[in-house]
Amino acid sequence: MNALQYMETALDGLRDAGNYRVFAELERHCSAFPKATFYQPDGETREVTVWCSNDYLGMGQSPIVTGRMTEIVQKCGAGAGGTRNISGTNHYHVLLEQELADLHGKEAALIFTSGYVSNWAALGTLLSKIPGIIVYSDALNHASMIEGIRHSRCIKRMFRHNDYRHLRELMAADDPAAPKLVAFESVYSMDGDISPIREICDVADEFGALTYLDEVHAVGMYGPRGGGVAEREGLMDRLTVIEGTLGKAFGVMGGYITGPSILVDFVRSFASGFIFTTALPPALAAAATASIHHLKNSKFERKMHQSVVAKVRAALDAKGIPHMPNPSHIVPVMVGSASKCKWISDILLTDFGVYVQPINYPTVAVGTERLRITPTPLHTDADIRHLSDALCSLWSRCALARAVA
Amino acid sequence: MNALQYMETALDGLRDAGNYRVFAELERHCSAFPKATFYQPDGETREVTVWCSNDYLGMGQSPIVTGRMTEIVQKCGAGAGGTRNISGTNHYHVLLEQELADLHGKEAALIFTSGYVSNWAALGTLLSKIPGIIVYSDALNHASMIEGIRHSRCIKRMFRHNDYRHLRELMAADDPAAPKLVAFESVYSMDGDISPIREICDVADEFGALTYLDEVHAVGMYGPRGGGVAEREGLMDRLTVIEGTLGKAFGVMGGYITGPSILVDFVRSFASGFIFTTALPPALAAAATASIHHLKNSKFERKMHQSVVAKVRAALDAKGIPHMPNPSHIVPVMVGSASKCKWISDILLTDFGVYVQPINYPTVAVGTERLRITPTPLHTDADIRHLSDALCSLWSRCALARAVA
Repeated sequence: MNALQYMETALDGLRDAGNYRVFAELERHCSAFPKATFYQPDGETREVTVWCSNDYLGMGQSPIVTGRMTEIVQKCGAGAGGTRNISGTNHYHVLLEQELADLHGKEAALIFTSGYVSNWAALGTLLSKIPGIIVYSDALNHASMIEGIRHSRCIKRMFRHNDYRHLRELMAADDPAAPKLVAFESVYSMDGDISPIREICDVADEFGALTYLDEVHAVGMYGPRGGGVAEREGLMDRLTVIEGTLGKAFGVMGGYITGPSILVDFVRSFASGFIFTTALPPALAAAATASIHHLKNSKFERKMHQSVVAKVRAALDAKGIPHMPNPSHIVPVMVGSASKCKWISDILLTDFGVYVQPINYPTVAVGTERLRITPTPLHTDADIRHLSDALCSLWSRCALARAVA
Repeated sequence: MNALQYMETALDGLRDAGNYRVFAELERHCSAFPKATFYQPDGETREVTVWCSNDYLGMGQSPIVTGRMTEIVQKCGAGAGGTRNISGTNHYHVLLEQELADLHGKEAALIFTSGYVSNWAALGTLLSKIPGIIVYSDALNHASMIEGIRHSRCIKRMFRHNDYRHLRELMAADDPAAPKLVAFESVYSMDGDISPIREICDVADEFGALTYLDEVHAVGMYGPRGGGVAEREGLMDRLTVIEGTLGKAFGVMGGYITGPSILVDFVRSFASGFIFTTALPPALAAAATASIHHLKNSKFERKMHQSVVAKVRAALDAKGIPHMPNPSHIVPVMVGSASKCKWISDILLTDFGVYVQPINYPTVAVGTERLRITPTPLHTDADIRHLSDALCSLWSRCALARAVA
């Protein structure tokens, strides 16, 4: 079998398992969030309500953000024109890094082209360069952290999800002299659960380990200034590195790390995935800075967000639609079958104008397929009613299990 | 020594070797390309002429590109709001992928957040998933290709730079039944030399290998429609995959692959670095599409570019400034010492308002440090005279070797 035949067979395998992905082609509209135009495969278009965006607060369409982006596109141009080292460092990158360091109370920050690259490059560099370092990684860490760890080829230990006692056991069994790093997240994207940051930091401190916290699903949304769960819990100074994204609640694109100046300078100086890539467009950096600055000073979006999340949960409960309980803004409605999940999603889109992408393998484990609903401050009561009515009707039609009241 | 002490020592090592990087903080200005404001470390600003940008044609500041970017920011917002699979596929991504497939005469295209990620993710996926595949990699391939290959853990062979006879020897020694892939570039960024694409494809065909060509330093600039060196030489159909960037001659940000539908779908379906990351902002996709479309139909920028490159070479020759001969638009002026290279660059900036970043290790090998000059269509005759005068004055001051006339 030649290479292309092999690929065709692998794609057929995805189709047979119900895991072949068809991207929904959308066009979002400023001032109409969370509505979007859906381009159907037949070429027709229709309006839909998006219920699965990671533009969690709608900041991507806020005039504060789009206005600043427009201003800097007109002033400085489209792209950065080079890597950070070779003509690509713009004044707006520097301002953004200052804003981010301040957000997390750290000495320094470094931006990357994406959150994925920030995890991959920062962990890959720290873990491959520091001699003898051992990484302790939460079992449900994001693909970008896993790939960075794998790429580093350092000694790895995986601790059971959120289980700091297991972490402690693993650390106690290792050489006390070896440098150590604990990598984990605050809000886990697919289940929406939150990690015991304090307890994990206590264990890390006991063994002198560095701590690396991914807050991509929390920045902008938690804490008095949107610094994330660690800010809300007064724990930011317990973390060596706080990593985040500019592409979710901040509504733009890009990722970053914040931490001690020496560590940030080390990653800046040695990370291939940082050095050898074109810098973010200045207008994206400026737009992200405006978004962060706004959310530092405004609690309105966070309050509205939590309020809409509570309303969505209540509406689902009223209809007996089972959703995973968790303390975050992510509302997973469990289906448990790839093909059924896709089928429900298709009907929601075509019959109800409700867009919730099915979440199948490899994003979640087989058997835990789900609809992952992400309410935003801009979903109205009517939107919520329409969503819960649509799900209720589908639950009856598909004979899916109801939640016990 | 703890981890932070180790990092500090490593940074001191860079400083001692003259390889510690200080980013020049710039602010580019639309309608003033290639001028920029330089923010000096003392807080003062001054105007400089940028001579080392990879915005090779100045398209990043063309109203065709900035106008379209502004329009779509205002229409659709700042960010994409999700991964490509989960609400992040926008109409403008689809249009861009069609434009790119057409540019290279391929069935399909797939965009990534950067050229780095496109190489890393595409090569990493193809080489790790296809059982038993052997990769043949040019010795001077870009870091992103090397990291993708390394990450895949497949069987690797490195052929001497541009040496298709060596490639043939290596292939002939391997199992004829093993699937094979040859990875190389058209224009090599630091020396500006161009690979023997036809001969490499001949060897690949003889052994039934896939071919993967990185054209990031060629797209937009070579070929009747800006399809790259392979287009200019009528060889696009000989390549399985043509990879490129939206962040250099096209002036925006992002990377892509083009190739057979099945291969592109395979990467789309299995590449972690594609699946688990927020999509490019729709406005960047639309701006890149406008740039590509313009350069498909206008030869003016390419002609002007080549003309300015020729003028720069002639001006350097007239002053006896040694530069590496090559058939591309990249003009490497060799210095051969990290500290001297940085010192010259600093004086050019402070005394002459000429910004050319020193290129030191790890971007080039120790002993081959250089100034890498990238002329654009928008550098004037006066800019060229000022550059060559400045270099001439420095060559006298520093007692650097002159080229023999």
